[in-house]
This record gives sequence, C-alpha cells and structure tokens, in this order.
Amino acid sequence: MIARVGSKVRTRITVVEQGRRKTRDDQLAAEEPLEIRLQAGAETETVAVTMRTPGHDFELAAGFLHNEGIISDAASLSGISYCVDADIDAEQRYNIVNVGLRMQQLPPLATLERHFYTTSACGVCGKASLDAIEMRECPVLPPGPLVAPSVLTGLPEALRAAQGLFDATGGLHAAGLFDATGSLQCLREDVGRHNAVDKLIGWALMQRMLPLHGTILLVSGRASFEILQKSTVAGVPVVAAVSAPSHLAVEVARRFGVTLVGFLRGERFNVYAGGERIAWDEA
Amino acid sequence: MIARVGSKVRTRITVVEQGRRKTRDDQLAAEEPLEIRLQAGAETETVAVTMRTPGHDFELAAGFLHNEGIISDAASLSGISYCVDADIDAEQRYNIVNVGLRMQQLPPLATLERHFYTTSACGVCGKASLDAIEMRECPVLPPGPLVAPSVLTGLPEALRAAQGLFDATGGLHAAGLFDATGSLQCLREDVGRHNAVDKLIGWALMQRMLPLHGTILLVSGRASFEILQKSTVAGVPVVAAVSAPSHLAVEVARRFGVTLVGFLRGERFNVYAGGERIAWDEA
Repeated sequence: MIARVGSKVRTRITVVEQGRRKTRDDQLAAEEPLEIRLQAGAETETVAVTMRTPGHDFELAAGFLHNEGIISDAASLSGISYCVDADIDAEQRYNIVNVGLRMQQLPPLATLERHFYTTSACGVCGKASLDAIEMRECPVLPPGPLVAPSVLTGLPEALRAAQGLFDATGGLHAAGLFDATGSLQCLREDVGRHNAVDKLIGWALMQRMLPLHGTILLVSGRASFEILQKSTVAGVPVVAAVSAPSHLAVEVARRFGVTLVGFLRGERFNVYAGGERIAWDEA
Repeated sequence: MIARVGSKVRTRITVVEQGRRKTRDDQLAAEEPLEIRLQAGAETETVAVTMRTPGHDFELAAGFLHNEGIISDAASLSGISYCVDADIDAEQRYNIVNVGLRMQQLPPLATLERHFYTTSACGVCGKASLDAIEMRECPVLPPGPLVAPSVLTGLPEALRAAQGLFDATGGLHAAGLFDATGSLQCLREDVGRHNAVDKLIGWALMQRMLPLHGTILLVSGRASFEILQKSTVAGVPVVAAVSAPSHLAVEVARRFGVTLVGFLRGERFNVYAGGERIAWDEA
C-alpha cells in the first residue's frame, strides 16, 4: 500500500485547494525504528531503539554512542554492520545495526541507559525490540464525526490566536483539541511536541472525556508516529498538522481508521487517510 | 543569570538586523526535566524523565501514563502531586511528580519500559534522576573561530539548496555542518531533529574529525537542550538555529562557551551566548 524506497515513501493523497479536490501522488519522509546493538567479545546488548528516517544508519549509531560517552573516536570501533541473522524478516532487515567495540566486554551500560529508549530483553536480533514500539492493542476508531473543510481550514488561526496569549517566546509547539465544529476545547504548549499532546490527553483524562471520539487534534508542527500513537490510543478520530506527516504516521492512521490531514495552511490541506470524515459536499 | 517564571524565561540577548546590533530583553521557552514516579501501596518507582516546558505537569504525567497503558482513566488514580521530600533542593522541587495508583502494588513495569527515558535506580525523590540528563563531564570549548555575520546569514540558504536535492517530502529536519567561512561540509536529514545531528556527528567521527573545533552547526528548526548537548560533546563551537532556542539550550551554551545563534532568517539573527566569536566589525 505504501512503497518505501530509501528515505522516501510514495503514496496517493487527496489535495484540497480553494474548495477543489484532486488526487495525486505524494512523497512522505520515511520513519522506521532503528535498534542499536553493542557487541564486545562474546557479549551483545541492545542499547537503544529510536524512530528515524532510514539512511546513514551507521553514522546515526556512531553519533548516538559518541554522545552517550560509549565511544570516543573511530578507533573505538571494530566495525558497524546491519544485522543479518536469518530469523529477521525482510522488512526489519535494515532496522538493526550492530556496533562492534574494540574491547573484551561491554562497558557498564546500567549507568549509561539514561537517555535510552530501552527495550525489554529480546532474542538475538529478533523482532521483539521493534515490536515494542508498535502501538499497543487498540481498536479501529468508530465512524464520525463529519467535518466540514471550512472547519479544518479555520483551525490553525484559532490555535495561533489562543497560543498568542501564552507563547511570547516563539519557541513552543502547540497542540489544540477542538470539537467537530472547530470550537477550541483545550490548548497545551511545550518545547516537546509529544509533551504538548501528552498534556492535552492528560487534561482530557482528568476531565473524564476519554475516549476522545468526536474531536479534532491540531498540532502546530509535523505529525510523527509518536503523535499518532498517542492520539489514537486516546481515541481521537481526526488529526490535523500544519506541516508534513511521516510515512509511519500515515500508516498508523490508515490501520486504525484515523483521518489524517497535513499541510493545513490557508485554504489548502492534504488528506492522507480517512477522507470519509470530510464533508466533501462543502468542498 | 536566567530568571525562570513558570514556562517562560527572561534573558538578555543581542539582536543583529541589517548590519546593526542592539541588546534587548527576550523571553525563552523554559525547558526542564520532569521525573514521573509511580506509587502503589508501599512501592515507588521512577518510570520516566522527560524534557518539558514546566506547566500542566500533572496532565503531562497522566497523559504519558495513559499512552503507555498504565492507567486507563481518572479512576485509576489515587492522586497526583509534586514531590515534597525535604532533601530536594529548591530548583528541582517542581520537577518531580508522584502519581498514585489505586492498587496495592505497581504493575509489571519491565514490559512497559519500552518508550521510557529510564533512569538508573535513585534515592527517594533524589536529584539523581535529574542529574542523569545533565551533560556528561565536558570541557569548556576553546576560543575561535571568528565568524562574519554575512557568513551566518548565508547558512540557511546554503542548507536549503543542499536539502532540496534530498528532501522532496517537506517533512524532514536538516542539520548542516559548515566551516568558519560558511562552506557546507556535510548535510544530514531525519524526521527526528536529534537523529539528524547524531548522523552528522557520526559522520564526523568516522572521518576522524572530532572534536569539531572551527565548525558551525546549523539546524533547520529549534535548538533544544538535546541538540546543544550533542553538539557540545562533539566540540562544535558555533550553533545556529532557524527557530528559537529553549532556555536550557542557552544555559548549556553559556556554561560551555558555545556561541548560540537563533532566529537566523534573512538578514537578521539573535545571539544568545558566545558573542565573542562574531566578527562584529563587519556588522
């Protein structure tokens, strides 16, 4: 359904511009998990799983390990390679990197695991670590609500107007929760995009509003896997982003019945998934 | 030096606009670590440390735990509060949130620790977990290079031109490494801003170029603590961002002798730290 070639993914989307709707091919930034494994002597350990755009994966692993203080220079490395164990299925084959260290045993990782997206123990190069960041069991969202295109195009201005009250810094991501008529229910801001969404969903939870069926989530930046994961677990049926979604965000939306809108700017937007919730009559 | 009031921080910066330089007050988005601790019966455990903008911290904790499947609704909670142990120093007092669960013991967290920025074991509400995301021991950067304002204002266009070759998606963060004359040495892109920087530093490591004294790093978005941490550990003396830095990014820059430039757009930019590396004669 989505064909990935290197760091880009080609897919079919609907573009809405000044009331007109057309279908065209589009390219998305690929987003995949990368598992970084350390090897020294006979020891092997997974130290991190990070969501990244495929490409330059060995550099990513080396740069990450340098920042964590595990390697100081290229001489610390005995080699970097993709894991080629026979039990890895094809789609994960380039998502696991083995970093060999020039030492007889692994450094004490317990003290270094602070920045890491750790994973629970997993078989040698198994799919376990990668599955760990899959969405938790989560039902496909029910139909509805039906949202008018004019409601969608009005959201960014409503968000900016409300954000202006709070953000004097120009440096915050915003997440806004709207009802299906475009009325703002809650706005949260944070330097971290995922935190703004966590704050919003935490607010809804404490208001006993979960699941958030019937609502629209707008994020001020891009829509990543993590954003879609959080919103879908909370039951949000319509997610709109001012910028681009990643390919994995689109995959989550299509799999779980979420309407995903991107590049929502002025009178135009793209629909990547769930077009049945858009009231096309008005478009 | 930097006074934090809630989610904003006021500081003194230098603004350069069309060759003229002036000093003014500015507001930065606050960025601080938040430790989320779970309590059930007599058990307490730290489950996450995340960099966030202070404010709505209880919602952040609740939303995070909901997404991780630890709580399903507000009824799962017996209470959320800031940690008030006497041994916490004042500046960390609002950076630790205790979430009480209505159960006799903690759920099995080992299987849930996959998304978490875990911390190593720490004393009850100690500063240990927060210190864990401090920068590793790292020398203050040596003086130089001296960079002309016209070199800085030329960087975003050079990055965009090179990025245009790679990014057809509109959805990728870019990080570019330049020499002091503004010549692009390496460009890396990723859906994750921190990954783009890791790839760049990993490239430099494998080219045996570390430490990166004499270079300039440009990031296409904002400059967070994490970006400054990575660049400083790699020895980059000048960091420029197209958007805003967080207050903690500025603190890292000032502490480690890094020149930090933000809002680098057209003929203007702000200098948040390390102005001595700017060749003001030209400005």
